[in-house]
Amino acid sequence: MKDLGYYNGNFDDLDKLTVPFNDRVHFFGDGVYEATLARNYIIYALDEHIDRLYRSAAMVDINIRETKEEMKNILNSLVKKLDDGDQLVYWQVSRGTQSRNHTYPEDMVGNLWVVLKPAKIKNIYEPVSAITAPDTRFLHCNIKTLNLLPAVLYAQEAQRKEVYETILYRDGGRVTECSHSNVHIITSEGVFKTAPTDNLILPGIARAHLIRACADLGIPVDESPFTLDEMMNADEVLISSSTAPIRVCNYIDGKTVGSKKIKIVEALQKYVMDEYLSATDVK
Amino acid sequence: MKDLGYYNGNFDDLDKLTVPFNDRVHFFGDGVYEATLARNYIIYALDEHIDRLYRSAAMVDINIRETKEEMKNILNSLVKKLDDGDQLVYWQVSRGTQSRNHTYPEDMVGNLWVVLKPAKIKNIYEPVSAITAPDTRFLHCNIKTLNLLPAVLYAQEAQRKEVYETILYRDGGRVTECSHSNVHIITSEGVFKTAPTDNLILPGIARAHLIRACADLGIPVDESPFTLDEMMNADEVLISSSTAPIRVCNYIDGKTVGSKKIKIVEALQKYVMDEYLSATDVK
Repeated sequence: MKDLGYYNGNFDDLDKLTVPFNDRVHFFGDGVYEATLARNYIIYALDEHIDRLYRSAAMVDINIRETKEEMKNILNSLVKKLDDGDQLVYWQVSRGTQSRNHTYPEDMVGNLWVVLKPAKIKNIYEPVSAITAPDTRFLHCNIKTLNLLPAVLYAQEAQRKEVYETILYRDGGRVTECSHSNVHIITSEGVFKTAPTDNLILPGIARAHLIRACADLGIPVDESPFTLDEMMNADEVLISSSTAPIRVCNYIDGKTVGSKKIKIVEALQKYVMDEYLSATDVK
Repeated sequence: MKDLGYYNGNFDDLDKLTVPFNDRVHFFGDGVYEATLARNYIIYALDEHIDRLYRSAAMVDINIRETKEEMKNILNSLVKKLDDGDQLVYWQVSRGTQSRNHTYPEDMVGNLWVVLKPAKIKNIYEPVSAITAPDTRFLHCNIKTLNLLPAVLYAQEAQRKEVYETILYRDGGRVTECSHSNVHIITSEGVFKTAPTDNLILPGIARAHLIRACADLGIPVDESPFTLDEMMNADEVLISSSTAPIRVCNYIDGKTVGSKKIKIVEALQKYVMDEYLSATDVK
């Protein structure tokens, strides 16, 4: 198969599959999700993504039918159905199926959806540009939910401006994250500074890997908020997500930024890529 | 038919209809919606709801395929297919159909969904109870989008506490609205006070009708924010939505509130019900 959509045990080409009209996701964006890459049919960091999905589900009271082990087995068997072993692996659990109503039965059981399509890790060595915008999202950004309409509009605005991402900031100037990435800086003292994992940012798995990389490489980490001003004057600005685990951002709102700690960046790039490639190498 | 689901020209029983897996609503809650009542197969306040839907769509850059007139014709013809002329009329437009991706083609055209099921106006003469909670939603509450997961959780919490609604407040104590209703107070001076239609509340159509009723009945209206404290000490607390256009709330967080301006309430109830019944009477 070229691509694949899966819904509660049924699967088909993405543009052929249909799903029940009464899935609650249709009316409330009522679900949680995950996305990662597969390479050589090996799903990268699967355990970490599965763990986060169950945490997200618990935070919004969604009951997942499958055990973690069952979900892993489903995903690992589905990726094998594609012609190409390098894929975007996306999956979500919606709250359940019910005629449209805000409230739901306490024993409702979730529906599992999977999207697979060919994809490769992005070129992490190519620097990117960004714009900034006020962060008007809800106060549950730590939960990976399907209430993503603001993220859609931020991403679309970035595309219109021909930049890679929209970097968001709250009142007072605190930088939070991007439309679908985390953002970090390297200070003039060589400290990797990244917003704390409170309710204003998603605890990114690529972010966690970068923090582990810093620990191994002896780069100090400071998980505390930074402002727009700090970012614009930082020695490096880095953007991370599961499909592009580290990217240098060297141009924000039309101004040149960063690119002053190239050695640290190169060390992080090497660490992150080595980890990704070795985890997804065919043994 | 007992109930009906409609999607871009196809319709069936709600639990039989299926929709394409690739509708963007599945991945982003990427759509806007409306809901009102029909009585005697006559859809109440249809023009106002249609107008608001197009305003919501424009604010999130969704292109609606149908003209307003076409959409009215579709809805008016669908309601006739049900056995019962008293219905909940719910409809939404999702951004379009596309393999999962944050960004979308600029010329993408929306998908129209309709839900019809038997329903009657709620008993507006029965007072209700409520709880309060911090308002953690996004800053686009003026747009009637399908990003409703917080509303789902607030409504579920109200159901667990066996109350009618959750009344929300922002930092600083400003009361905004409820999980799926607006909230208003009547002050000791007999003023109908209701939050302004900024980005923190939905401009409710029942709310607009109440303001018109006040004008006709000589009740002063003050569209300015009020606090939790003002609400708890108000002479009346009123909750409004399209399925229950005015309800007295006499119990909040376990405390008795309001019920001191019964004459004003009775005048508003009579006005609102007269308007509803005469607009949906078979001529």
